[in-house]
Amino acid sequence: MTDSAAPVRRTTTATRVLTVGSGRSAEVPDRLATEEPLEIRAGGPGQAAAPVAVTMRTPGHDFELAAGFLFTEGLIRPDEVMAVRYCQLGPSEEQQYNVVTVNLNRSLDVDAAGRRFAATSSCGICGKASLEDVEQHCPPVAAGPEIDLEVLLSLPARLREGQKLFDKTGGLHAAGLFTAAGDPLVVREDIGRHNATDKVVGHAVLGGLGGLPLSAHVLAVSGRIGFEIVQKAAMAGIPIIAAVSAPSSLAVEAAARFGITAAGFIRDGRANIYSHPERVRLP
Amino acid sequence: MTDSAAPVRRTTTATRVLTVGSGRSAEVPDRLATEEPLEIRAGGPGQAAAPVAVTMRTPGHDFELAAGFLFTEGLIRPDEVMAVRYCQLGPSEEQQYNVVTVNLNRSLDVDAAGRRFAATSSCGICGKASLEDVEQHCPPVAAGPEIDLEVLLSLPARLREGQKLFDKTGGLHAAGLFTAAGDPLVVREDIGRHNATDKVVGHAVLGGLGGLPLSAHVLAVSGRIGFEIVQKAAMAGIPIIAAVSAPSSLAVEAAARFGITAAGFIRDGRANIYSHPERVRLP
Repeated sequence: MTDSAAPVRRTTTATRVLTVGSGRSAEVPDRLATEEPLEIRAGGPGQAAAPVAVTMRTPGHDFELAAGFLFTEGLIRPDEVMAVRYCQLGPSEEQQYNVVTVNLNRSLDVDAAGRRFAATSSCGICGKASLEDVEQHCPPVAAGPEIDLEVLLSLPARLREGQKLFDKTGGLHAAGLFTAAGDPLVVREDIGRHNATDKVVGHAVLGGLGGLPLSAHVLAVSGRIGFEIVQKAAMAGIPIIAAVSAPSSLAVEAAARFGITAAGFIRDGRANIYSHPERVRLP
Repeated sequence: MTDSAAPVRRTTTATRVLTVGSGRSAEVPDRLATEEPLEIRAGGPGQAAAPVAVTMRTPGHDFELAAGFLFTEGLIRPDEVMAVRYCQLGPSEEQQYNVVTVNLNRSLDVDAAGRRFAATSSCGICGKASLEDVEQHCPPVAAGPEIDLEVLLSLPARLREGQKLFDKTGGLHAAGLFTAAGDPLVVREDIGRHNATDKVVGHAVLGGLGGLPLSAHVLAVSGRIGFEIVQKAAMAGIPIIAAVSAPSSLAVEAAARFGITAAGFIRDGRANIYSHPERVRLP
């Protein structure tokens, strides 16, 4: 199953902007990264699908986002997904494409799932206030591949090449899966770095890349590495994370604990390895 | 009330990192931005304080963050805050300083407040999936001041000057309040841009800067402007937002509706004005 059947949504929004500078100002056309809420619903056979989460996202690959979110948050297993579809009873076309329902082959305790997200406002953390809670859901990642330093250093530029929206809008977050040889497999963009990560993992949840776990893959992310990125990578079994900027303290702690190689500050021909450097082959 | 009584928390965390490049590698000391969960509790007289939200944040100015969050999310009014304190019954010292209780002069329907955050995983959006929901809580901002283009263009550099942690850790989000003349009033840093914004607004909620609304102030933020930043500025009555990078579509739509001047891409002596340019005085 892929989300190729989904209609093409507007990932960028046309606007007019007053551009100002010393002595010159002009109203010119511009494009903004679209930001809209996505309500993710889930339910099993004979069970009315109920809302589990709402996330502000850039439209596009919504089915991957919904499936990836439910999986990386520990709510479902990949083999439980029977169908993913847009709401067909929305009050308007716009709203219709802002609600995605994931049909499962078993009942989901939506109230319990909702409680996981209660009392929360963070980016992708969703009520899990401890590493321990994540550990209940995922063991350490497998040994996985080694990566040549040269390949590692090239990943930010390769990720950037896959960012189609970045050029139009002047900057969106991106996440991409690469082979250990540096070949790009899937790149996704979103206003939220956690959404971009859920989209690439969701691609595998829906059967892409041979499914899960992604034990032979490298996750490259734009910007920083927060705890939620490591948590999502751990759920997907990804052994190596490469980022342009710095990780947080909790991200490094989690990566070390889950056996993940976390590399950051990849720029100007150098990188920092924060955890499990044994996978990086130095020249 | 200020949070100056709060103990000094570790805003950065010492680590050792393997720095690698062509032909050289070395293990060196490094500092990471600290990321830890903060549980925000609230309750009225004779009411047991109950958890309302958990956010992953960089420790520091936690009382401002808790008060600012409850206010910008429409759960409390500033004059309802009686006291803010760390939990005194935590299982460990670390956990003790990751729980903040806000005592109110009235009962809070914590279940209803919690439901606002249920079914949510986004950055500071917290279940409000529509502009209409925000509009219930805040009218358009006041006319406010005008700002010279020259001052507007200088704000990213002035914000950067106030970022003490950025230099140590190589990059954190920041939010700052400035006068229309460009004078810095309060600058806060956090791994979450929404948290940094809540901290500066929370500074006023707790009585700083003469309290709310912040009708004469300019909010400068690092990075992009998402919807949640505009929503928080609108709640605080801030008429001008200045950002280094681009806004999202929903951010511009919200700024236009709430009467807020949104300026972005402020770099290289130029800026884009996305809404309400009438407050920007061109040379």
